[in-house]
Amino acid sequence: MSKVKANSVQSIIGIILQNIPSDAAVTKIEYEGPMIAIYTKNPRYLLENNAIISGIVKSIKKRIVVRTDESIRKSEEDARKIIIRTIPKDVGIVGTFFDTALGEVTVEVKKPWILTQVEEGEEEEVVVVEDREGVSSADVGAGSSSSQNIQKQKQIQALLIDLIDSTGWKVRIRKASHIPSESMKQVNYTKKLFANERYRLLRSVGESIFRPRLFEGTEATLMTLGGFSEVGRSCMLLMTRESKILLDCGINPGASDPMNAFPRLDIVGFDLEEIDAVVISHAHLDHTGFLPLLFKHGYRGPVYCTDPTLPLMTLIQMDMIKVAAGEGELPLYTERDIREVIKHTITLPYKTVTDIAPDIKLVFSNAGHILGSATVHLHIGNGDHNIVYTGDLKYGKSQLFDSASWNYPRVETLIIESTYGAKEDIMPSREEVESNFVNSINKVLMEGGKVLIPVPAVGRAQEILMVIDHHMKAGNMVEAPVFIEGMISEASAIHVAHPEYLTRELRQRILEVDDNPFTSEYFTTVEHSSQREEALREGPAIIMATSGMLEGGPVIEYFKSIAREPKNKILFVSYQVNGTLGRRVLDGSRQVSLMSRDGKIEVVDIMAQVEKIEGFSGHSDYNQLMAYVNKLRPKLRRVIVNHGERKKVENLAGSISRIFKIPTAAPMVREAIRLY
Amino acid sequence: MSKVKANSVQSIIGIILQNIPSDAAVTKIEYEGPMIAIYTKNPRYLLENNAIISGIVKSIKKRIVVRTDESIRKSEEDARKIIIRTIPKDVGIVGTFFDTALGEVTVEVKKPWILTQVEEGEEEEVVVVEDREGVSSADVGAGSSSSQNIQKQKQIQALLIDLIDSTGWKVRIRKASHIPSESMKQVNYTKKLFANERYRLLRSVGESIFRPRLFEGTEATLMTLGGFSEVGRSCMLLMTRESKILLDCGINPGASDPMNAFPRLDIVGFDLEEIDAVVISHAHLDHTGFLPLLFKHGYRGPVYCTDPTLPLMTLIQMDMIKVAAGEGELPLYTERDIREVIKHTITLPYKTVTDIAPDIKLVFSNAGHILGSATVHLHIGNGDHNIVYTGDLKYGKSQLFDSASWNYPRVETLIIESTYGAKEDIMPSREEVESNFVNSINKVLMEGGKVLIPVPAVGRAQEILMVIDHHMKAGNMVEAPVFIEGMISEASAIHVAHPEYLTRELRQRILEVDDNPFTSEYFTTVEHSSQREEALREGPAIIMATSGMLEGGPVIEYFKSIAREPKNKILFVSYQVNGTLGRRVLDGSRQVSLMSRDGKIEVVDIMAQVEKIEGFSGHSDYNQLMAYVNKLRPKLRRVIVNHGERKKVENLAGSISRIFKIPTAAPMVREAIRLY
Repeated sequence: MSKVKANSVQSIIGIILQNIPSDAAVTKIEYEGPMIAIYTKNPRYLLENNAIISGIVKSIKKRIVVRTDESIRKSEEDARKIIIRTIPKDVGIVGTFFDTALGEVTVEVKKPWILTQVEEGEEEEVVVVEDREGVSSADVGAGSSSSQNIQKQKQIQALLIDLIDSTGWKVRIRKASHIPSESMKQVNYTKKLFANERYRLLRSVGESIFRPRLFEGTEATLMTLGGFSEVGRSCMLLMTRESKILLDCGINPGASDPMNAFPRLDIVGFDLEEIDAVVISHAHLDHTGFLPLLFKHGYRGPVYCTDPTLPLMTLIQMDMIKVAAGEGELPLYTERDIREVIKHTITLPYKTVTDIAPDIKLVFSNAGHILGSATVHLHIGNGDHNIVYTGDLKYGKSQLFDSASWNYPRVETLIIESTYGAKEDIMPSREEVESNFVNSINKVLMEGGKVLIPVPAVGRAQEILMVIDHHMKAGNMVEAPVFIEGMISEASAIHVAHPEYLTRELRQRILEVDDNPFTSEYFTTVEHSSQREEALREGPAIIMATSGMLEGGPVIEYFKSIAREPKNKILFVSYQVNGTLGRRVLDGSRQVSLMSRDGKIEVVDIMAQVEKIEGFSGHSDYNQLMAYVNKLRPKLRRVIVNHGERKKVENLAGSISRIFKIPTAAPMVREAIRLY
Repeated sequence: MSKVKANSVQSIIGIILQNIPSDAAVTKIEYEGPMIAIYTKNPRYLLENNAIISGIVKSIKKRIVVRTDESIRKSEEDARKIIIRTIPKDVGIVGTFFDTALGEVTVEVKKPWILTQVEEGEEEEVVVVEDREGVSSADVGAGSSSSQNIQKQKQIQALLIDLIDSTGWKVRIRKASHIPSESMKQVNYTKKLFANERYRLLRSVGESIFRPRLFEGTEATLMTLGGFSEVGRSCMLLMTRESKILLDCGINPGASDPMNAFPRLDIVGFDLEEIDAVVISHAHLDHTGFLPLLFKHGYRGPVYCTDPTLPLMTLIQMDMIKVAAGEGELPLYTERDIREVIKHTITLPYKTVTDIAPDIKLVFSNAGHILGSATVHLHIGNGDHNIVYTGDLKYGKSQLFDSASWNYPRVETLIIESTYGAKEDIMPSREEVESNFVNSINKVLMEGGKVLIPVPAVGRAQEILMVIDHHMKAGNMVEAPVFIEGMISEASAIHVAHPEYLTRELRQRILEVDDNPFTSEYFTTVEHSSQREEALREGPAIIMATSGMLEGGPVIEYFKSIAREPKNKILFVSYQVNGTLGRRVLDGSRQVSLMSRDGKIEVVDIMAQVEKIEGFSGHSDYNQLMAYVNKLRPKLRRVIVNHGERKKVENLAGSISRIFKIPTAAPMVREAIRLY
């Protein structure tokens, strides 16, 4: 095995060719975004002898993926027939999706456990090695490693190799959701429709990433474009001598003035095409809402996010168009722009070192906030500097997710959120929270009232659903119909399709027992206006609807009706951004004016009870934020606090600086900070 | 007089037309850079009735200049004849320069005092009024206002009106230097050659300045591009919602790596054409050296500086080309680029409020550092924010200049230099400095040695010349020939041509007595190699040569010879930037290697004495810097310390923050600071 340092395309291809026997029947070697794709007419050989590929990966320190040569791929029709014939009937194939750009087929099945314990989403041939700078340790697959499991793994591996051999397509098995996800369909449809363009895009992204470096020294500057000393429009630009990376790209749902609603890209002055990559921490609107506008204005580079983040942000971005239409406004962007986002997005699993620029390596890790939410670890140069951006962070276990990762080999600069950064922002224990929640609801239901829970579709909604289902089944909560607006059920479906991003318990329930916690006899998904009427008819009920901050969406219609009755309750369970209707209601407004579709003003007197249950938040409380900073090793050189109202940011920055003696900045938007 | 607020071209022109009688024979009204030019066929009328123009100025709050209509301008030949005929012979006309873009002729004369006491450089029709935001108070002319003087003023005014009437050209009288200035000739020649282009440029600059504002609110961000926590490459970008202004544009003479030598414009990302204006505080290379490169790379906007700064920076920029050629290197830019700088430069007098962008007004005031050096006062929006950038600051009187101005109506943000910002940077008294200097030189001259004084051509050189002349004449200093390299004499000539920028005493010596302190029987200007040989021949002598930090220039040849003899002395009188040869010699190197023109390395053993006389500096010492900050009223909201080595910056920032309780920043290059 050659130990030559691989810096150029030639040397990379040289090393691969030197190390692959002719039996592998390699037909071409190409960039595929941040990976190197090896095309073969004999995939069985490379998959059965996977030491060959892992040896090359160790040598070139780049991600490699094995692809089948197009000439051996059967037609989709024939391949589908072979797959249906090969996979046992009782596994229950629900659908197949052929990704022609990659030569991959995803098979959605009802009962994957019949095939055996498969760890979904794992790209088995992507061998993650410890980076030479020690950036990331290997963490292949998320399953347990009991000998029984290893046996089962081998079994499924053999099946997949048989299938690749007989169809010429790489086969991935995925658990089918209880209801089909429209967003995932839209993602797949777009990928299929623009397969040729995506294929070209991935090659050209690779060429940019693996180009030789132009400068000798390294340095890094961070420009704050949004979400500093405020919540909303999270966005920052990381500039090195070689690269310009945008971290998050959100909007502020509570602001109307464009100078406050959108990231301040105007102060940067770069053409959008000069930006090398956009890295997205998670799907929420305040982190992804500006992405379609970025493409509308001409950005055509890659977007990196985790696998579930892509359909989730598509759902959220599509909803923004619907909400605008519902209010008779012109949407900021169209479906066409969202399609561009999908075409340019490259999804990455957690804990995988990926080159995203000639001098920057990216590793996503679990942030515990919502499905697919990630902390962003960026390694610059050759061990020169390491940055961790937490995104929205839950350092604490929830029903849905494990606690955020903290085990980074090196961090010099930490950029940490501070939504609950004030000293008094201490959350009650989980038991207390749930008991408060149950009691609060019971009181209303017993009086025959209705509880309206405004929730963001993604994150809190699923957590609340699990809690309600659990406590109703356990007899703690008064039984009542629970009406769930369609977008929430859609988001739940995306959760079920990505069990590897959930806690182990939940993953096992979904993959091994088919005990999907988001379907329950109490739940009714609202899809027609007749169901909406039913929900509002006399009698106790729980209604969950978006948006979570009363900024448009179906929640508004419920709100108008439910707010007028003293026996009803508006129950908030999530953070209310300054300037939103939700925040005003929570802060005690007893009368609000709503603009209806036809421009008429409707005054709503709020007679209903208003309450907020603290503790369901997907954000860390003050103690958790401080504990997280304290946990990072070796000692941080600098902390930058963002994503919080001014006084929260200042308080957290003050605490970190005083208690841990780390220089800590509390910048505003429109500042540039020299990292090193 | 209409009191309508003048916001648009139409309303401005409307107000002017409403208020000018038809007797004025106005033919057109046009932008001329930041001024509005009123063309007339009857200039006598407007000049004799100057209340008309000052009334309009008060109303529209814009600078107005009266121009003669081209149809009444006599040919240059005829006009010259009339001027020669009209001005008394014994005044001694040395030359005339016809600026065809403006219809102005400058008449250089030997003995202006015969005409009477003229305040040079004053544009008598530019009536400076107190701005409605109170930005600047009027300060027309720098002369005394005794009744005798007023009488003399009227006399010269009558002569100038007669001349404009008879020639159709506006006539300005200027004192001719003892030797002609090549740089001033180059400036004039360029202006003449590109008169049509300059005329168009000035109009288009005016259109940009007086365009309507695009945004409602205001804000300002300062990006540090060079000269922060370092000395060299001074440059910063001020961004408002409307405008982008570059303040200074220098290079670092001590750095070789482009990432350290040049302003970090690469982190800004704007096309150079997006920059609205460049404002230059003074002519030194570390504030102007990058200007030709800016034009080389496509900038085509205006450059604002004071009147003497233009020929001085031309001299310095031309010298850089010569120095590079002398060392066999390719220069960074060519004469063509310097010509672009000249074409695009708009000079402004001190204390005159000038619009340079739709939302920014500029006032230059005396900075006391070198000829024409200015503090930069920027007023943003309608009273929203005021910035003072000191440039290089001497808050203390010197032989040449008055102490820096401090009387600004409002300042919220002060950007102050810190070359001598450490607590121990306290300069001795002027008497002590001069006595040290005289003693130090006397010791060497009495032993028959030579004193080599490396000086920057502009600033310290003239100060030292005055001191030497004074003390030799007074009998304190041993009489010896003083050899002055040509570039220094050239700079002295520019001083003599701009007496209004010198102290009153010096101005009077030059304008009223013709006692030019830069010519002396002891002085020999070195123009030929034979004179250089003479300077190095056996026997005591003082040699003054550029560059001041031993970075190339004629000083190097002297250095090689003079350094080898223990009885000689290298006497530094100015700040030595880190990384320069001068700094190394001063820091105690006893052997240095010099690369000769043909690439050979020459080792020079330094046997000569090396000394630095502190106190001639054109910079404020620590006490003066602190006193200056303390002097500004009302209380500053923020101080930003720049232009100093890291520890000086930190010390001064610490002192200001601790003693005056003003938030003070000590940023590095590559930071952005939100001003408001």
